Amino acid sequence: MPMSEKRQKKQKLFKPKARIARGFRDLSGDTLALQSHMLTTIAQVYERYGFDQLDTPTFEYADALGKFLPDAERPNEGVFSIEDDDGQWISLRYDLTAPLARYVAEHYDSLPKPLRRYQSGYVYRNEKPGPGRFRQFMQMDADTVGAGHPSADAEICMMAADCMTALGFGQGEFQIRVNNRKLLDAILAQCGLEAEADDYEMRRLTILRAMDKLDRLGHEGVCALLGAGRKDESGDFTPGALLEPDAIERIMDFLSARQADRHATLSQLERLIGDHPLGIEGLNEMRIMDDMFTALGYGSEQITMDPAIVRGLGYYTGPVFEIELTFEIMDDTGKPVQFGSVGGGGRYDDLVQRFKGVRIPATGISIGVSRLAAALELRGHQSDPAQALIVALVLEPDRRVDMAQLVQQLRLAGLRAEMYVGDSGMKAQLRYADARNARLAIMIGEDERMKGVVTVKDLALGRQKSQEIDSNSEWRESQHSQFEFKNDELILELTNLIK
Amino acid sequence: MPMSEKRQKKQKLFKPKARIARGFRDLSGDTLALQSHMLTTIAQVYERYGFDQLDTPTFEYADALGKFLPDAERPNEGVFSIEDDDGQWISLRYDLTAPLARYVAEHYDSLPKPLRRYQSGYVYRNEKPGPGRFRQFMQMDADTVGAGHPSADAEICMMAADCMTALGFGQGEFQIRVNNRKLLDAILAQCGLEAEADDYEMRRLTILRAMDKLDRLGHEGVCALLGAGRKDESGDFTPGALLEPDAIERIMDFLSARQADRHATLSQLERLIGDHPLGIEGLNEMRIMDDMFTALGYGSEQITMDPAIVRGLGYYTGPVFEIELTFEIMDDTGKPVQFGSVGGGGRYDDLVQRFKGVRIPATGISIGVSRLAAALELRGHQSDPAQALIVALVLEPDRRVDMAQLVQQLRLAGLRAEMYVGDSGMKAQLRYADARNARLAIMIGEDERMKGVVTVKDLALGRQKSQEIDSNSEWRESQHSQFEFKNDELILELTNLIK
Repeated sequence: MPMSEKRQKKQKLFKPKARIARGFRDLSGDTLALQSHMLTTIAQVYERYGFDQLDTPTFEYADALGKFLPDAERPNEGVFSIEDDDGQWISLRYDLTAPLARYVAEHYDSLPKPLRRYQSGYVYRNEKPGPGRFRQFMQMDADTVGAGHPSADAEICMMAADCMTALGFGQGEFQIRVNNRKLLDAILAQCGLEAEADDYEMRRLTILRAMDKLDRLGHEGVCALLGAGRKDESGDFTPGALLEPDAIERIMDFLSARQADRHATLSQLERLIGDHPLGIEGLNEMRIMDDMFTALGYGSEQITMDPAIVRGLGYYTGPVFEIELTFEIMDDTGKPVQFGSVGGGGRYDDLVQRFKGVRIPATGISIGVSRLAAALELRGHQSDPAQALIVALVLEPDRRVDMAQLVQQLRLAGLRAEMYVGDSGMKAQLRYADARNARLAIMIGEDERMKGVVTVKDLALGRQKSQEIDSNSEWRESQHSQFEFKNDELILELTNLIK
Repeated sequence: MPMSEKRQKKQKLFKPKARIARGFRDLSGDTLALQSHMLTTIAQVYERYGFDQLDTPTFEYADALGKFLPDAERPNEGVFSIEDDDGQWISLRYDLTAPLARYVAEHYDSLPKPLRRYQSGYVYRNEKPGPGRFRQFMQMDADTVGAGHPSADAEICMMAADCMTALGFGQGEFQIRVNNRKLLDAILAQCGLEAEADDYEMRRLTILRAMDKLDRLGHEGVCALLGAGRKDESGDFTPGALLEPDAIERIMDFLSARQADRHATLSQLERLIGDHPLGIEGLNEMRIMDDMFTALGYGSEQITMDPAIVRGLGYYTGPVFEIELTFEIMDDTGKPVQFGSVGGGGRYDDLVQRFKGVRIPATGISIGVSRLAAALELRGHQSDPAQALIVALVLEPDRRVDMAQLVQQLRLAGLRAEMYVGDSGMKAQLRYADARNARLAIMIGEDERMKGVVTVKDLALGRQKSQEIDSNSEWRESQHSQFEFKNDELILELTNLIK
């Protein structure tokens, strides 16, 4: 057709390269099925605890979003922002907590108090992508806003443990680790940091970030960052917090205070904190949480107290917690590694205050669904198999409608079935069914039509056999995975085969 | 605490206004539950037909995305774009079809052919928001890529009808309306448009867009747009396509050729098309689709042939279809209106060609989930009720742990239950339970503890009574919605109450 040719000519002028945007990824197959399964499972747990779903938009006003990224060292980076045509800047959410603060402040008077909401959704980070580091990933949060009592924090931790159990993680495979920012601040005070000093907030964050790196840099690295600074392998120098040796020792003692048992850790912490009022307050909150954990049957192997949990974010004000995967997996290079954190959260009593001027206590957890899915995949998690697919081949194109009717009957009987809708011959059609990982192929040629039967190929069995049988010819001759069923018995037989 | 006060002082310097970004919205409660329900229902239908889920990212390279927006009159508007730090422009997807074309072109060799994928997700339009017009909305698409036969189009139409049925729409409440771009182009040729002319594409789109406005502007308005142009109520003038009167008449005859019965429409179209080869080709495709519809039991009330279906997008090359809601709803002003289109699609054989240079036939449908949810809400759709919530009040704060244990027992028994985690008294707690729309409140005070019972308030019954009882005092005295259950019978009694 002339018109179409003309269009083709025009398109030759510019042919863009088909490529996914840098730092993003397509999800399909098992990975996507796993993510969907996780979202459903976690939502069920959150719902069961009485949380209601909320869905805030992808965009927020940049000023309403604020800057609470873990990487606050580069405050203007990390966020995708666009200037709207009315001159206001809008940004893509980088987490689900900042939009919640906006939502609560905007609708405070009409909301139930406390507000218990959960939300899943993609969040976006305008960061340098790397292997396994994407600029879009899925989080699933639950928060209680308007409740200051530590029982609200304890509930979140127990719910996180329930989520991990519901996802199939057994005893010893995960741990919820709890700390309290007030303890951290008490230790800082003991180290001589004065809360009234002009550079307090800056020094505090420098120290907290150094402490947060114990996992990655080890004892020596953190000591360097707390002291004179640290030069990494590449030669880059990170300035240190310039603390005195005895202050550094005090912090390192604190970081390693975790015991196997929650009570033992709390006793140890009591010794380290001394009589600092903020420390006593934090310790008291941890004791209330511990009582709740114990009464409801969450042992130290599930929920532990761990002074090394810091959390990078600046906005936490009380309890902080992390969900750790404690089993080892093989990384890409075959090295065994402990997977580490797949989520976390804590109390952030000041976040809504940004808007309202009044303090509204809040606590919550964020599960990194994309990261957790990666962990499950590395561990070799078997997701629930999708419903088996039946592909009906079209051997006689002019009898397509008859085949479509048959396939409709299969679907009405509850089977997952499609008719091949391409234009290729039988061989390509069988290749297609295989590429789709179909369980069965059915076909009707002239022979079958005359005999009133349908030929059924068990593709799963065939794939299994093709692994067992060496030679190609042997495989071709093997017909054990092929059956003939009478027309009126087909649905019953297919249903039995698939079960 | 001095630190916190200090932080408060700092935050007084700038207090952003908590407001949602212009043109976006928060979803919660019934609306969100309805959307989730719709996504699940449609996914089940798509899966049953053998489509597999795919999830492309929110961002695509601007050049890979191309510009296929319906409003191609403003080619540089409509898309949210950001310049990445490597100088490349990335854009938020405005639909799910353009990213699919990129995905197919990028992975063509390794994909099953045809590729059958479905995808749900938010899409973004950088457009002027208005009442009911948002800049982010949910679509759910299914496409078959690599199949040129009209049976692939027919399957998509029947699947769309099945989706509507699965969502609860009855006979006569919806209709899938099918047309074919080849017929439209044949009519244009008859009107004297030459496909070889330099301004052909531009004139073609002008005419197609005019035809597409029959619903909104009526017969007279479309005639004006096909001819000299049209001045709207505000006085704005839209230039016309400058067709001769007999050409306009021909087009208007074509647009109104729809009959109650598919076969009658096809006969009528045969007469209008004459012997134009492209028209005969298009008509033949419609006949193949019609045969399929008829054989599989989709009558004219479910799927109709309608020459007035144009679809605004420029990229369609063959069959086009729309999902119309045909029942009337009341709009915001109380006026009855037919809801109209909630989705559509068609064949787009050229879209992947942009990248690959070779033509890859493709057809698909997009269901506007947000729009369909709005229709269901306006119609007064009752979504599946969420599981009933039980709120446990805390009358004795120092016995919180005991109550938490009880609530845990309820959850383990399969009930949806939470303990109040705020800091307020009983009255506020009951208000909270009401605001949460809880079904039951349970409470244990000293009396109950001594007697070994739990007091249960049936809040749903209470709400119902409060509507029946006029005076406030009467309501307060009414205690029929309150029960006492023995501790060891509580779970059984609650389960019975909620059933």
